[in-house]
Amino acid sequence: MPRLLLNADMGESFGAWTMGQDDAVMPFVDLANVACGFHAADPDTMRHTVQLAQQHQVNIGAHPAYPDLVGFGRRTLACTPDEIENMVLYQLGALDALCRAEGTRVSYIKPHGALYNDMMRDEHKLAAVMKAVAAFDVGLPLMLMATANPAPARALATRHGIGLWFEAFADRAYDAAGFLVSRSLPGAVHHDPAVIVEQARRIATGQPLIANDGSELRLQADTLCVHGDNPESIAAVKAIRQMLATLS
Amino acid sequence: MPRLLLNADMGESFGAWTMGQDDAVMPFVDLANVACGFHAADPDTMRHTVQLAQQHQVNIGAHPAYPDLVGFGRRTLACTPDEIENMVLYQLGALDALCRAEGTRVSYIKPHGALYNDMMRDEHKLAAVMKAVAAFDVGLPLMLMATANPAPARALATRHGIGLWFEAFADRAYDAAGFLVSRSLPGAVHHDPAVIVEQARRIATGQPLIANDGSELRLQADTLCVHGDNPESIAAVKAIRQMLATLS
Amino acid sequence: MPRLLLNADMGESFGAWTMGQDDAVMPFVDLANVACGFHAADPDTMRHTVQLAQQHQVNIGAHPAYPDLVGFGRRTLACTPDEIENMVLYQLGALDALCRAEGTRVSYIKPHGALYNDMMRDEHKLAAVMKAVAAFDVGLPLMLMATANPAPARALATRHGIGLWFEAFADRAYDAAGFLVSRSLPGAVHHDPAVIVEQARRIATGQPLIANDGSELRLQADTLCVHGDNPESIAAVKAIRQMLATLS
Amino acid sequence: MPRLLLNADMGESFGAWTMGQDDAVMPFVDLANVACGFHAADPDTMRHTVQLAQQHQVNIGAHPAYPDLVGFGRRTLACTPDEIENMVLYQLGALDALCRAEGTRVSYIKPHGALYNDMMRDEHKLAAVMKAVAAFDVGLPLMLMATANPAPARALATRHGIGLWFEAFADRAYDAAGFLVSRSLPGAVHHDPAVIVEQARRIATGQPLIANDGSELRLQADTLCVHGDNPESIAAVKAIRQMLATLS
Repeated sequence: MPRLLLNADMGESFGAWTMGQDDAVMPFVDLANVACGFHAADPDTMRHTVQLAQQHQVNIGAHPAYPDLVGFGRRTLACTPDEIENMVLYQLGALDALCRAEGTRVSYIKPHGALYNDMMRDEHKLAAVMKAVAAFDVGLPLMLMATANPAPARALATRHGIGLWFEAFADRAYDAAGFLVSRSLPGAVHHDPAVIVEQARRIATGQPLIANDGSELRLQADTLCVHGDNPESIAAVKAIRQMLATLS
Repeated sequence: MPRLLLNADMGESFGAWTMGQDDAVMPFVDLANVACGFHAADPDTMRHTVQLAQQHQVNIGAHPAYPDLVGFGRRTLACTPDEIENMVLYQLGALDALCRAEGTRVSYIKPHGALYNDMMRDEHKLAAVMKAVAAFDVGLPLMLMATANPAPARALATRHGIGLWFEAFADRAYDAAGFLVSRSLPGAVHHDPAVIVEQARRIATGQPLIANDGSELRLQADTLCVHGDNPESIAAVKAIRQMLATLS
Repeated sequence: MPRLLLNADMGESFGAWTMGQDDAVMPFVDLANVACGFHAADPDTMRHTVQLAQQHQVNIGAHPAYPDLVGFGRRTLACTPDEIENMVLYQLGALDALCRAEGTRVSYIKPHGALYNDMMRDEHKLAAVMKAVAAFDVGLPLMLMATANPAPARALATRHGIGLWFEAFADRAYDAAGFLVSRSLPGAVHHDPAVIVEQARRIATGQPLIANDGSELRLQADTLCVHGDNPESIAAVKAIRQMLATLS
Repeated sequence: MPRLLLNADMGESFGAWTMGQDDAVMPFVDLANVACGFHAADPDTMRHTVQLAQQHQVNIGAHPAYPDLVGFGRRTLACTPDEIENMVLYQLGALDALCRAEGTRVSYIKPHGALYNDMMRDEHKLAAVMKAVAAFDVGLPLMLMATANPAPARALATRHGIGLWFEAFADRAYDAAGFLVSRSLPGAVHHDPAVIVEQARRIATGQPLIANDGSELRLQADTLCVHGDNPESIAAVKAIRQMLATLS
C-alpha cells in the first residue's frame, strides 16, 4: 500500500503578524505548502519557514496565490490564464531561491485558496498553472483535489508533461462528485476526532467514503490536507499520523 | 582590449503604466537590468521584457529593489542585512523563473536605486547582497559602481566567492573618489552628446577621466550604464555603440 | 434645457508613472473623477490632481476602486458588500482630506472599472456603495450608468437618501437595454468625430439614440463621460464642448 | 489636577491576521490610536475598531504611518516633507470617513513607529505632519513625545495653529533629555508592575522621574501611552487605571 502523505499550509505569517502554529505541526507532516508572498508571507517569513521544514525533513511545496494580502488569497480575482501562468512562475521562483539559500529546492506546487478553487472549476486556469509548472521544472508535481473523476485533470497534465498529486480531506464532508460540501451547509466540517481519523483511514486504505447523498465515493489520493491553526487541528494531525503508522 | 558592455534598466513599466522605451533601446545594449516587481514591473511585464531581451540576444540581469512601488525604489528603507539578503533572493528567483519559461536564465545581478546606493555606502548591506547572490548561484556576477578604490568590494566578493562587474557612467560627472557628483550640483549630468561619447571612449580605452576637482580619475569598468528613457538618451546609446564599434 | 456636464477620469498616474494628459483635458471638463490610490494614484498624485482641478474650477469626484494596482482596478475581485462599503468610505475620506488641504471638498462619487461594472449588475454591491456615500455625506450624488430602465437604481437611491447622476457615453455603441456593447464586438467604439459629436448632441438634447438592434434608445443623462488619454480623445472633448456651447 | 489620559495603539490587525487584544484593553483607555492601513489595518478592521471604541466611549485618533505593511511602519523610509504631509492627510481622511459611518469623528492624530520617531528628530518632518493636521482640521491636536524641552515643538505648533498633546511612558526608562533609552540597552523597559505604576503616578502628579544618568527629569504629559499586546501589559493598564482613580 502506497504511503499517504500529510500536507499542510505553512509560512502564512506576514511581517509582524503571526498565523498558524508551524513549529507545532511541522514535525508531523510530510509536505509543507509554503506561502509565497502574494496571499501571505514575506521573504523573511519564507526563509524561516524553509529552515523549519529543513529541520524536520519536510518537503517544500510552493503555495502560490492571487495577489491579495488583505483577502488572504481567498477572493477570486478575475485574472487571465496568462496572468495566472506568470504569477505562478513568479512565486514559484521566489520560493525556490529562498530554498536554494537553505540547500534545498521546491519539490511540488499547490495553489492556494481562490486560485486553487478556480483552477478546479476552469480548465483554462488549470492549464495556465500547469504551463507554469512545466516551464519551471517538468519534474515538479502539481497538487490538486481528488474528485470522483480525475480523468480530465490527468489528461491535461499528460498534455503538459507534468505529474499530479491528488489530495483529499479527512475533516470535510464530500458530495457525490467528490467536491467538498460548502462550509455554509450543516455537517460540512467534521469536528469529532474519531470521525476525522476514520475518514483518513478510509482514504489511506482505498475504502469508499459516504457522500452527503448517501452514495459511495471512491477517491484516489496521494496526500491528505491537514491543518495547524489551533490545538484541535494539531491534535487531529497527530491522531492521523498515529493511525497511519499502524497501517504500514 | 576587453569589450565594454552596455547595460540599461529595462522592464520598468507596471501594470497599465508604461515607462521607458524598451523596444527602442534593447537592440543597442548587451545587458538588460530587469525590474523584479518591488520598485517596478509585475509578472507579465517581466515575462514580456525577458522575451524582448531574448529576441535581441541581450543578457538578463536581476534588478532587485526595496519594496517601494510608490517611490520607485529610490527612497532608502531602513532594512536589516537579513531583510536585504532575503528580498534580493526573492526577486532574483522570481525573475529567474520567468526566464526559464523563455528558455534562458538570469546571468547577473544589479541592485536598483536606493538599494544600490546603500550597498555602495554600507559594507553590511553590500555583504547581504553578496550572500544572496552566492546562495542563489555563485556563478552570477554582481554589478556595482566602479570607483577609484575597488579593493574593498573585491575583497568582500572574494570572501563570498562571487565575481564582480564594475559599471561606469558616460553622462555623469565624477568626484575624485570616483563617486557621482550629486544631481543637485551644477554640471552633474552631461547633456552634450560629444561629451558623453568622449567620456565613454575614455572609459572603454582605460584613459583617465577628469574629476570635478580637476584630478585624474582612473576607473576600471566592465560595463557602461546607459538609459532608454527618452529620444535624447537613446540617441546617446546609439552614438556610444557606434564609437565602441570603431575600437574593436 | 439642463446642461450636460462633461466628466473624465483624472489623476490616474502612480508614483513615477504617468497616465493620461490631465493638463490638456482638465480645461474642458466640468467634473474630474479622481483616483483614490486603490487602482491608481498616490497621495501626492491626488494632491496635485486636486490642485489642477481647482485651477480650472472643475468639481472633484471620488473615483474609488477595488484594491488592484497591477490590474488598474479592471479585474473583478470577489468582495462582500461590507468590504465594498468600507473600501469606498476609506477612499472617499482619503480624497476628501486632500481636497480640504486645497480648500475644496469631494462633490460626488463615481466608482471605477470593475467596481463600477459590478455595482451596475449586482444590487447588493450597488447598495453597498450607496451606504458608503450616505454615511459619508448624504448630499453627495453617486454617478452611475444611464440605462433604458433607471427605475431600480432610483428606488434604491431613494431608500438610501442619496441623489444620482446618470452618465452616458458619446463614443460607445449601446444595446437596446442601454448597456454598452462589448468592446470585443465590431462597432462597439466610435472613432469618427462626427459620429461622436452627433451622439453627444442627441444625449444633450434628449433625442433617442439608435441601439445596435436598430431600436430607439432614450437615455436621461446628467453627464457625459469623456476621455483624455490621447490627442484624438482630447480633440473629441473639445468638439463636444463646442457643440454643447451652441445649445445653450 | 488635570486628568492624565491613557492612549493605546488599536486596530493593528490586518486582513486575516490578528494583532493585539483590543477587546480586552479598550475598556480601560481614553484614547485609541487607530491604524489607518499603511502599517496595519484595512478598511474593515478600521470600521470594526471604530465600532469598538464607540462602544466604550473612547476617543479615536488617527495613527498614520509610512507605507510599509511588511515592516509594520517601524522602518524609516526616506520621504520628503511633502510626501509626509500628503500621506498623513490621506490616512487621516480615510479613518475619518469610517468614523463618520459610525457617527463619530477623528479627534486627534498620533503618528506611528518610524514616522513618529522621525518627526521627533527632524523639524521639517514634524512641520509636515503639523501642516497636514492644520489643513484637515485645526481643532485636532497632534500627540507627540513629552521631552525635557517641549518649547521647540510648542513654537512650531503655534506657528501652524494647532494644539499639542504630550505623551509619556510608564514602562520605559528615560535619558536626561527626556528621550527613551534604546531598547537595546539594559534596563530600557520596565517589567515590574510596581515600577510601572509608580512611574505612572509620578507622571500623573507632576513629580520628577529619575533619568538613566541619575538626574531628575520633569515631563509635562497630557497622556500616557499604554499597550494591549499581552496579558502582562493589559494587567499594567488596569493597575495604572486603578492608581489614577485614587488620585482624582
